[in-house]
Parts: sequence; structure tokens; C-alpha cells
Amino acid sequence: MARAAGVSKTVASRGLAGYPDAAPATRERVRRVARELGYRASVRARLLSAGKDAPARCAVVSLGLTTAQIGRSFFGPVLAGVMARAAQEGIDVQLIALPDTGNGIAGALDRLVAEDRADGFILVTWLPLTPEDVAPLEQSGLPFVLANRHFDAYPGHPVNCVTLGWEQATCDAVVRLAALGRRTMAMVLPWRETSTARDHERGWHQGVAHTGIAAVDAPVLRMTLKPEDAASQEWARRLLTAGLPGTSQVPTALVGFNDWYALTGLRAATAAGVPVPDQLSVIGFDNAIGPATTPPLCSYDPHPHDLGMAAAELLGAALRRELESPRRVTIPLDFVCRESCGPAPRR
Amino acid sequence: MARAAGVSKTVASRGLAGYPDAAPATRERVRRVARELGYRASVRARLLSAGKDAPARCAVVSLGLTTAQIGRSFFGPVLAGVMARAAQEGIDVQLIALPDTGNGIAGALDRLVAEDRADGFILVTWLPLTPEDVAPLEQSGLPFVLANRHFDAYPGHPVNCVTLGWEQATCDAVVRLAALGRRTMAMVLPWRETSTARDHERGWHQGVAHTGIAAVDAPVLRMTLKPEDAASQEWARRLLTAGLPGTSQVPTALVGFNDWYALTGLRAATAAGVPVPDQLSVIGFDNAIGPATTPPLCSYDPHPHDLGMAAAELLGAALRRELESPRRVTIPLDFVCRESCGPAPRR
Repeated sequence: MARAAGVSKTVASRGLAGYPDAAPATRERVRRVARELGYRASVRARLLSAGKDAPARCAVVSLGLTTAQIGRSFFGPVLAGVMARAAQEGIDVQLIALPDTGNGIAGALDRLVAEDRADGFILVTWLPLTPEDVAPLEQSGLPFVLANRHFDAYPGHPVNCVTLGWEQATCDAVVRLAALGRRTMAMVLPWRETSTARDHERGWHQGVAHTGIAAVDAPVLRMTLKPEDAASQEWARRLLTAGLPGTSQVPTALVGFNDWYALTGLRAATAAGVPVPDQLSVIGFDNAIGPATTPPLCSYDPHPHDLGMAAAELLGAALRRELESPRRVTIPLDFVCRESCGPAPRR
Repeated sequence: MARAAGVSKTVASRGLAGYPDAAPATRERVRRVARELGYRASVRARLLSAGKDAPARCAVVSLGLTTAQIGRSFFGPVLAGVMARAAQEGIDVQLIALPDTGNGIAGALDRLVAEDRADGFILVTWLPLTPEDVAPLEQSGLPFVLANRHFDAYPGHPVNCVTLGWEQATCDAVVRLAALGRRTMAMVLPWRETSTARDHERGWHQGVAHTGIAAVDAPVLRMTLKPEDAASQEWARRLLTAGLPGTSQVPTALVGFNDWYALTGLRAATAAGVPVPDQLSVIGFDNAIGPATTPPLCSYDPHPHDLGMAAAELLGAALRRELESPRRVTIPLDFVCRESCGPAPRR
């Protein structure tokens, strides 16, 4: 924007903010270009320019999701939790949806910084996130918090984040199923590699090692599963009838990446005549639809409202410059027991 | 608060806001009492007292719901929609949950006004609302919008509201079921009388009159139904086996107040050996769990995100004093066809 107006960034931002030290003609030019480009002057910048105190502004930024998708998903309670906690912290919250990140996440975030859209950011997304994606926020010095993402795979990039205990919960699922007598099982994860998928995989392998089940009897399989999708149904049906890759042993337990993956397994079991939970135990994650399925689905609850509260609390501390280094908060999941898990039948 | 400090409301609010025309001793007394009572001075009032422009502040107030319940329910997308639209309107949004309205809704709203918590309010609730409940907002002159509530039952109380087309959709359900050859049917509504329940009932009777079905063959029944609740299950099973009150004709279609009511019907049908949709068609409202049930449930989608957007837009107009009289906006519902409805078997 500054470039388009032919002025420096400082002059542009001071012109937009209405500082008197920008010449009137320059101010006018900056404002005209800003209008053309769709930029909006920051109300807060104007307030601050008058030496007034104002509440800090937090933006919940959704990458690859519309506001309608946020409301209907796991992120609906996250948003409500952020707002509940932000009110206590004296932070204003806005919601910025960036459903189309086709030109790159970094570019989208750079623009938010350039537009002075907020004093701090909470990022929510289904997409993978890398340190490169958030470089514009790092460089701006504005505090930000990742919700349900971390940078463990990128050593040397500490970051403020609130993560969920996917790893521990997945390990718990294996131990729980083994205790029910299940010795052949599979976890199904999506192809897309996110920190969440990696956490599930790590937890799964821990659980398998802990229970002494042979790795070949408890693989992690990669497939995108949707309950209404015929190809998903067919893949799951074959898994339940033709057995695990390599051994052809039929699995006696399935763990899904989320409840919809697990529901695909439930439907395939019905189609294949495999009784649940007698011949097959099924567990999902997110605790989103458990009471509605047949049989009601066992699932791990990630407490998304708590995740939102913790993210706002962490951002508050960062805005007050209370953190000496980036901090990570992890929310543990809880198992919600319904009817899709049971002991293996006696031989 | 003003009474506790022994001053008028005007002096109290001006004292809290830091107006110089309150004597220093009075200001101090007001602030001390405010602190003791847990009141907070309004940041915006202080900003305005310095003659500065600030964005209008909207509070989404949930009555009888925690912020966690908001996020997980129908109101999650409403909140996201309010925030999406408010950003365009230049309105700040905060979320105020009043889960315990045991001492009366009016008292809780009165306190929000006294605390200067916002410039305008959007009310969301599962509870019934009356003009008396919102009298403190009326008297304050602060604009407010009801989301999914109206005052049709109270003539002479026009109010800004965004309502959902429950009435038209319920009428549509009867017509749709009659077109499938269903001539005995029931709608199940909760005991609690809200504007939503009244709209369903009115729409049902319209549909029955329109299709020429005898009223006794298509009653509205009142019962609280929860799919996991044994008494609900038993009630629904008896309805499907012993038949409608008065005629003992078994219903060939059920319409639930929401998807959970409809799911109770699906489960009871399974338990009673009544095949769906062959012997029984089932329809729900809210489109919350349809893809997860067996069979997948037909439901009307109330577009809660659009409801939130419309509420923020209406509040924006009210805040700008653009409305000459209270306005009502209605969002139509859409039927989402899945597998729980089908033609009646030929005789």
C-alpha cells in the first residue's frame, strides 16, 4: 500500500492513523490509495494517537475456513472460549476468516500486519502450518498463538501454542483396546501431514510398544474417510473383510482420526455384517457426534472451549510482555465411554 | 449501584465514566462502591469523555447458557455470523454469558445496562422471552435485537428481531409427508412454550388444514424427548406401537422439534421393529446430526450463521438510528433430504 502511494511505510501508517506530522496532501494521497486497495484506517491507531488507553485487539484468524465453517465445527467452541477468556483479560476479539489461502498463508498474514488489523493473533486452521507461514507475524513483533498446532517438527522455532493431548489420548486408546482383549487393530489417519496427525501417529506407536502388540498387527493406515463417500465405504469394508495389509488378519478394533472416520468404520461394519462392539471395537476423536450414531460412538473429547480459553490467556500474557520465551500449554483429552467398545469375545 | 453510593444514576454513570462535572469526592465514592459491587468503568465511556470516536460495542448476551454450551450448539454458528457481519459494520463484539438467570432475566439485563457493558445487545437463549424481560433494555434506549425470538404473542410490543421460518418449514414438512402418501402423523414439541414452539405448532396446523388430513390423525404432542433417556424411548415406542391418542392409528410419519427429538423416534422405531423410511418417515429440525444417524436423518437447516449475520446487520442499523420503527427479518429454512423419508408402501 505504501509503495502504491509512493511513500514510506511509516508515512503511510502515520498518514492512515491521522497523525498531524504527515503533510495534508500526503495524508490525502495515502487515504485515497488505501481506499482503492480496500485498506481501513485503524480506529485504535487514531485513539492511541490522541494518547488514549484502549483495550488490546485480538484477531482470531481462520486459515482455509469460512466463518460459517468455523461456527459449525470444532472451532465454534474454540471461538466462544477465546471470547469468554478475552473478556476477563480486557481484550477485544475480532474474527478474520481467510478461507482462500491459495496465494500462501504468509502473504495473507503479512497483509493483516500491514493493515494493522490487530495487536495479537490466534491462528486456527485445518491446514498444516510451518514456521515460514508465520514469518510475517514473527517479523512484526506482534504476539501470536497457534491453536491446535505446534512446531515440534521444526527444531529451533519455539512458538506460543495451545496444543491438545492427541498423543497421550491415542496411546491411551491402544492400551484401552488391548485391555479389552483386542490384539489386531488399526488407526486411520488422513494423508495430509499436520502436527495433529503426527501426534496421533507417535501416540499410537507408543501404545503399541507399551502393550507388546506386534507392529504388523497394529498399523497406522493413511486414507481420507468420509461416511457418505462410496470409495471410503468400500475401502473400510475391504479392511474389515480382507484384513490388515501384510497379515490379512481382520482387525478387531479401529481408531479413527476423528468421529467421521470412526463412523465410516461403523457403517462399513454394518455393511459387512461385523457386529460392533462384539467383533469390532471402534473409537473416534472430537466427541462431536457420539450420541447420534448406531451404536453410540466412544470418543475422546478435546475440550475445544478450554483450548480457546487457554489461547486467549496465553495471548494476554504475551500482549502484556510477561513471557520471557514462547510457551506451550497442552489440554488433556478425556475418554467418553459409550457403546462402540467392548471386550473381545472369549474363544 | 447508584443507590448504594447514595447518588443519582446520572451522577453514578458520569462519575464512573470520569466526567469532570462530578465532584472529586463523589467520583471517589462512586468508584469505591462500584469496585465493591464488582462493576467496571467503561473504557469507551472514558474515551468518549475525551471527545474521541470509538467503534460501537455489541454484546451477544446468552441467557441460560454458558459460553461452552453456546460453542457446541446452534449458537456457535450464530456467534461466528454475528462477528463476521459486525466486522463489516465496524462494530466490536463481546460475548456475555448469563447461564444463571434464576433471579430473573430483567434483573440481569438491568445490570448490564447499569454497568455500561455495551452500546447494543443481541439476545440468544433457549428460554422463553417476554416484553417484561427486556424492559430494562427498552427503558435504557439502547438498541437490541432478539435472535430466534419474537413477541407476536404480545401485541403492542414491536421489537427488533431476526426470526427463523419455523412456521413455513413445519407447514412444508406436513405437505411433503402428505405428498409421500403419509396420512397419519405427529409432531412432538417440548412442554416449554417459546416463540419457536408456537411457530412450529402454527405451521403444523396450516399444513394439516392445507392437505385435508383430519386433525385427529395429525396431532401435536407435547413431550421432552432425549435419545439416551429411557422414559423418552418408552414413550416413543408406545406411540409407534399403541398409536395416536384417541384413534390408536399408528403414525406413519414423525416430525421432531429438533434432530434429537427425531433421533429418539428413529431409535424407538428400531427398538419396535418399525422399518424407516418404509413404515415410518422421520424429519427433524436444525440439520445438526443428520449425516451421523442410521438411517441418515432428513432435516430442515435454519442457517444459524445467516441468522447471526442478519442480527448484527440489524443492530448496526439500529445503532446508526436508521430504523424508524422496530424491524423483523426472517430467515427461511431449507429441507436437507437424506434417507429417513420415503413414500408410503402401496397397499
